[in-house]
Amino acid sequence: MASVQDISVSAVINLISALVFLLAFAIARLQPINDRVYFPKWYLKGIRASPRSSGSFVNKFVNLDLRTYIRFLNWMPAALKMPEQELIGHAGLDSAVYIRIYLLGLKIFVPITLLSFAVLVPVNWTSGETLDHIEDLTFSNIDKLSISNIPSGSKRFWAHVVMAYVYTFWTLYILYKEYKKISTMRLDFLASEKRRPDQFTVLVRNVPPDPDESVSKHVEHFFRVNHSDHYLTQQVVYNANKLAKLVEKKKSNHNWLTYYQTKYERDPEKKQKIKTGFWGLCGKSVDAIDYYTTEIEKLTKEEAEEREKVKSDPNAIVSAAFVSFNSRWGAAVCAQTQQSRNSTIWLTEWAPEPRDVYWDNLSIPYIQLSVRRLLMAVALFFLTFFFMIPIGFVQAFASIDGIRKVLPFLKPLIDMDFVKSFVQGFLPGIVLKIFLILLPMILMIMSKIEGFTSLSSLDRRSAAKYHLFVIVNVFFGSIITGAAFEQLDRFLHQSPTEIPKTIGVTLPMKATFFITFIMVDGWAGIAAEILRLVPLIMFHIKNTFLVKTEHDREEAMDPGSLNFSVSEPRLQLYFLLGLVYSVVTPILLPFIIIFFAFSFMVFRHQIINVYDQKYESGASFWPDVNRRILIGLVISHLLLIGLLSTKDASQSTPLLIVLTVLTIWFHKFCKGRFESVFVKFPLQDAVVKDTVERTTEPNFNLKEYLQDAYLHPVLKGVDFEVLKELDDEEKNSLVATKRTSRRSSKTVSNGTSEDQKMVSEIQLVF
Amino acid sequence: MASVQDISVSAVINLISALVFLLAFAIARLQPINDRVYFPKWYLKGIRASPRSSGSFVNKFVNLDLRTYIRFLNWMPAALKMPEQELIGHAGLDSAVYIRIYLLGLKIFVPITLLSFAVLVPVNWTSGETLDHIEDLTFSNIDKLSISNIPSGSKRFWAHVVMAYVYTFWTLYILYKEYKKISTMRLDFLASEKRRPDQFTVLVRNVPPDPDESVSKHVEHFFRVNHSDHYLTQQVVYNANKLAKLVEKKKSNHNWLTYYQTKYERDPEKKQKIKTGFWGLCGKSVDAIDYYTTEIEKLTKEEAEEREKVKSDPNAIVSAAFVSFNSRWGAAVCAQTQQSRNSTIWLTEWAPEPRDVYWDNLSIPYIQLSVRRLLMAVALFFLTFFFMIPIGFVQAFASIDGIRKVLPFLKPLIDMDFVKSFVQGFLPGIVLKIFLILLPMILMIMSKIEGFTSLSSLDRRSAAKYHLFVIVNVFFGSIITGAAFEQLDRFLHQSPTEIPKTIGVTLPMKATFFITFIMVDGWAGIAAEILRLVPLIMFHIKNTFLVKTEHDREEAMDPGSLNFSVSEPRLQLYFLLGLVYSVVTPILLPFIIIFFAFSFMVFRHQIINVYDQKYESGASFWPDVNRRILIGLVISHLLLIGLLSTKDASQSTPLLIVLTVLTIWFHKFCKGRFESVFVKFPLQDAVVKDTVERTTEPNFNLKEYLQDAYLHPVLKGVDFEVLKELDDEEKNSLVATKRTSRRSSKTVSNGTSEDQKMVSEIQLVF
Repeated sequence: MASVQDISVSAVINLISALVFLLAFAIARLQPINDRVYFPKWYLKGIRASPRSSGSFVNKFVNLDLRTYIRFLNWMPAALKMPEQELIGHAGLDSAVYIRIYLLGLKIFVPITLLSFAVLVPVNWTSGETLDHIEDLTFSNIDKLSISNIPSGSKRFWAHVVMAYVYTFWTLYILYKEYKKISTMRLDFLASEKRRPDQFTVLVRNVPPDPDESVSKHVEHFFRVNHSDHYLTQQVVYNANKLAKLVEKKKSNHNWLTYYQTKYERDPEKKQKIKTGFWGLCGKSVDAIDYYTTEIEKLTKEEAEEREKVKSDPNAIVSAAFVSFNSRWGAAVCAQTQQSRNSTIWLTEWAPEPRDVYWDNLSIPYIQLSVRRLLMAVALFFLTFFFMIPIGFVQAFASIDGIRKVLPFLKPLIDMDFVKSFVQGFLPGIVLKIFLILLPMILMIMSKIEGFTSLSSLDRRSAAKYHLFVIVNVFFGSIITGAAFEQLDRFLHQSPTEIPKTIGVTLPMKATFFITFIMVDGWAGIAAEILRLVPLIMFHIKNTFLVKTEHDREEAMDPGSLNFSVSEPRLQLYFLLGLVYSVVTPILLPFIIIFFAFSFMVFRHQIINVYDQKYESGASFWPDVNRRILIGLVISHLLLIGLLSTKDASQSTPLLIVLTVLTIWFHKFCKGRFESVFVKFPLQDAVVKDTVERTTEPNFNLKEYLQDAYLHPVLKGVDFEVLKELDDEEKNSLVATKRTSRRSSKTVSNGTSEDQKMVSEIQLVF
Repeated sequence: MASVQDISVSAVINLISALVFLLAFAIARLQPINDRVYFPKWYLKGIRASPRSSGSFVNKFVNLDLRTYIRFLNWMPAALKMPEQELIGHAGLDSAVYIRIYLLGLKIFVPITLLSFAVLVPVNWTSGETLDHIEDLTFSNIDKLSISNIPSGSKRFWAHVVMAYVYTFWTLYILYKEYKKISTMRLDFLASEKRRPDQFTVLVRNVPPDPDESVSKHVEHFFRVNHSDHYLTQQVVYNANKLAKLVEKKKSNHNWLTYYQTKYERDPEKKQKIKTGFWGLCGKSVDAIDYYTTEIEKLTKEEAEEREKVKSDPNAIVSAAFVSFNSRWGAAVCAQTQQSRNSTIWLTEWAPEPRDVYWDNLSIPYIQLSVRRLLMAVALFFLTFFFMIPIGFVQAFASIDGIRKVLPFLKPLIDMDFVKSFVQGFLPGIVLKIFLILLPMILMIMSKIEGFTSLSSLDRRSAAKYHLFVIVNVFFGSIITGAAFEQLDRFLHQSPTEIPKTIGVTLPMKATFFITFIMVDGWAGIAAEILRLVPLIMFHIKNTFLVKTEHDREEAMDPGSLNFSVSEPRLQLYFLLGLVYSVVTPILLPFIIIFFAFSFMVFRHQIINVYDQKYESGASFWPDVNRRILIGLVISHLLLIGLLSTKDASQSTPLLIVLTVLTIWFHKFCKGRFESVFVKFPLQDAVVKDTVERTTEPNFNLKEYLQDAYLHPVLKGVDFEVLKELDDEEKNSLVATKRTSRRSSKTVSNGTSEDQKMVSEIQLVF
């Protein structure tokens, strides 16, 4: 158990490492050579051009203006400066609402912290009876400020119960206000949006086969009959998965070709040879440039054939379609109603926006979907509770004995002292770490198997799975040490009243652990996020070998995006910790507040300057966020009940159960009150928007506008070759504008980031 | 523990009492004087008239034709004769589907019984190791046929596990088929129905207040804008609760007036006096006929005033309305979509049919509704688990000592031996019995407080509450003796794996108790149902004192109806018992089969000849029935797991958990596959019906047809006085038809019931 000194030391270490990251970031971002790593969002918006194209040779790579280094932290006020409304326009509602989660954390925990330090800390501190005379290693000064310091059966526990009430009501109040605010933001966002194809379109799945008609005709007839006044057009879905793979492969080959061509240009003497066999390790050695040129030619031909086949073969059409209506009202009605008496066919739902569609999952029959969900639910259960078993096997295999047995020829190697200590010391940890890094990917694959049809819903589902994993394996796993399946076993053999006691009693002792965790994962981790080390390195590698044109440089730029499926559940852990410890060990709260404040600034900076979202779902994840915070609240109540009943204060149990019931009721209330805003589209709003549009643009040809909106991206011919040509054409016509922006961006790169922001903002407004 | 002999004795006793009821029924129903008690359905349909109006004086009251008595059981084949399609037309889909639940019981349990007797009974019987040498009172011959007879750790338990699989899959298969069949029946029923106001109408609740417009105008404007092509008309809801009470009071006074007039006519000498005070016990003595005549005059005036007030006062209009559309498509769309961005106002739902509307609940605001549901959920919890506490108090009060203390003046009375033994022996039981009789009413009041807007949904909600009560207090309460709150306490302090063991181990011992229960409650209870003792007595009392006109006689007739909220949860207990004991003690199954078969016949007879449903919901209760049977199946798995793990066969646990998971998945699957049929109305069907109607009746004035469909019944002027006048008029015009039906019904009452049925059927066809 760590004392105040230990915590201080840890805090200092982590603060220093966070500062190092921040300094590194401050320096790296001012170098023109890194400009595309730290400001990709502005490049993508087309209002920032490379600062490298002007100035002296050295200035192209290194920023020599020392004045700019002094104010190395002033990205922070800059990040806070953009008003929210502008932020929504700039980065989308998803991002703007996402960073509001951090703000929500501040809104909830700042008053709670103040109250805790005003009320609970004195109550705990002055009750110095229990721990003073226990000379035990498991207690430290920190515990004097926690509930552990209060003797069993004390009347002082009433203070904690009252505070649990105050905190719960405060949290619910803030959550209610926030939910209301966000639902209004969403509706305003949807209302203020420009015309978008998904506003008029409904995704129809499980189109039943018809022996006499093609899918296309069948869909058209069905909707012409059942939505006679509103049907406009439809777009069938082609199974273009094979084609997409060919395009992907061609692109990869093209990259290799560029790589070898670049190498050849730099050193024309050396012949570029590759081997054609497995992973370039074996097989015949051929000239690389020739090889890739012929490969690309071959693939181009194959691709053209496949493209023809997809468009002409009726079997390439899957049993799904995007049906468009002549008004938002018609689409809203179709999305919300049941079409057929068999509720497993003609399933309609609001179409995701075109770039949000996950094409592979559009044609899964209902019964198969149902079976897939069952299997994935079972798999998730085993993954959450039993993942340590296969990891244990691999770890056993990765031990000295394991390697000796299975790979005897490695024996001389592993008998070396250095290798031995590495294998013993690091390998098991690395195996676990690799699994944890792979986990989000595994969960995403599971969500894909479950058959969701949009990237946003896939993200939300993966987040739900990851949240379960985090609660079970990080939160409970840290409190009750032991693998999850051991916990599960223990819980199965304990009574429901015993479980909260078991956890509750160890709760105060784990406070220092979680404080350290917050500093390592929360503070230093977030500071590392802003440095973007991996994209930085990747960009420079690509820049060196693959970039020939401006378009290639655009491609090499990896703005990344908010990874909702991972970051949101992690973030929820901090809410959970805050809520659980707000009554038990209030000293933990300031650490959480710093986390929320710091993350808020970092992510606000990132979404303004870096991230480029892959889709825009209009904050449809908010019901999940709200629910998970409420889950945290319920867990905090149950653990407090357990803790107090081990402290001879079990008469408070009914009082706290009332809070739990209230919280669950609040969840139901919020669900009924707000959730439909995130799922349905109210007809009133649809009518308003339709009417406005009909008045302002009476002659707009909607059918033409929607014609190809929902074509599979590879069929649109938007593969990289076409893009490149477009890019070249664009360049010529846009030379003048680019020049101006280059000139202004020169000022940008030499000025402070605050100035940069201002300039960019002005550019944005114009 | 009862032996086979005990069971046989009990079976004989119950069979005899059932036979006595059946004989009494057979005799009573043949008496012309009872004709309106046993065949009210046909009277209400207007195709049967009283057999008392012809024949000799004695024949009017007693059936002297001895031949008809011989075949006293032939109502049974008659009950089975009507084909299902005709039954739906005759009694409605609700009733026809309700009796299919009994049929479902037979479909599930007959094959299970056969298999059990072919496989499990021999397996249990031949394993005579355990119980032979235990000379214990708790085991009997019956246990030799049960799982108790198999020694711990025996390989024979595999037979039980395999059978659990077979039974579960069979049950799920039958449930799936039945759900499919019933959803088709529902859709066909809805499709084949004649034009009905609710097909075009949507109930709109929580109309927001508007300072400038009346509710009526506000509703009209809102829907004219948002459903411009489909809106037809609307009907606001008046708060006519006070008026309804006045009408009710007037009717009651009218009954008393008739009563005293009849008495006066019989004995004109005696003056009819009543006291005007509390319950007629004190106050001034006045002439009864004068008193009621003036009372009725006064009430008539008050009623007229109130009627005027309701129609003119804008405050009497509540914030709800029935909005009608010009097509079924329009109504279906409006019912299924969200209207406003605030999802707590302008709530639309499919309107219940006019007689199904529960008028009092139409204007509850959303937040209040939400609070009410929370309070009722808490109340239900306490009612289910802690109802024994207040009952215990009352019982303590109702004991000798309690009475002595509180009512000392009764001391001489209760010191009498007879009174003493009565108080000691019966009073506690009677207190409990009174509570159990009141329980359905209490649950119905709770459902009403929850704010449901139709009688059918109130019934479904009450049934759900009653089902919980039956499972906890009857099923688990009988297995683990002790009050429910003691069970709850025990479960809270036992581990989740321990609970099924505790129950599982006592399961086989309780088999004989449940067999007796089935015979008493199931066999004799159902036989008592058909005798209709209470309606029989009530009818004769009313007939003697209140009936003056034919209409009065019609009023005195109480056809009753299927009380879904009580009978369905009770019925579910038999499914639960059958599923639980199918593997454990198969000898119980034949008793359940007899129950289902006998009930099927009785209720088929009742819905053909007696019951008159208050509403028609189109079998919308089926999802509940399906879910509850699945709950029974899951309980049976969990108890089997518990039982087997006490028998050293816990290696079967994972296998049985697979079954549980499968069952829960099946529930979800069914919900997705079928439930929307019971909640929504598919647009395809709406379009078909609209098109047909538009073609066949292009000039139908729908607006006029719908104008007053959803007026509060008391505002329609359909109070009894008006009816009486109508009745008199009708009589004159319908004399001829009545005559013929009387003649034919004379044959009916003299003939056998089979003949009766045939005649009635012929009348029905014509």
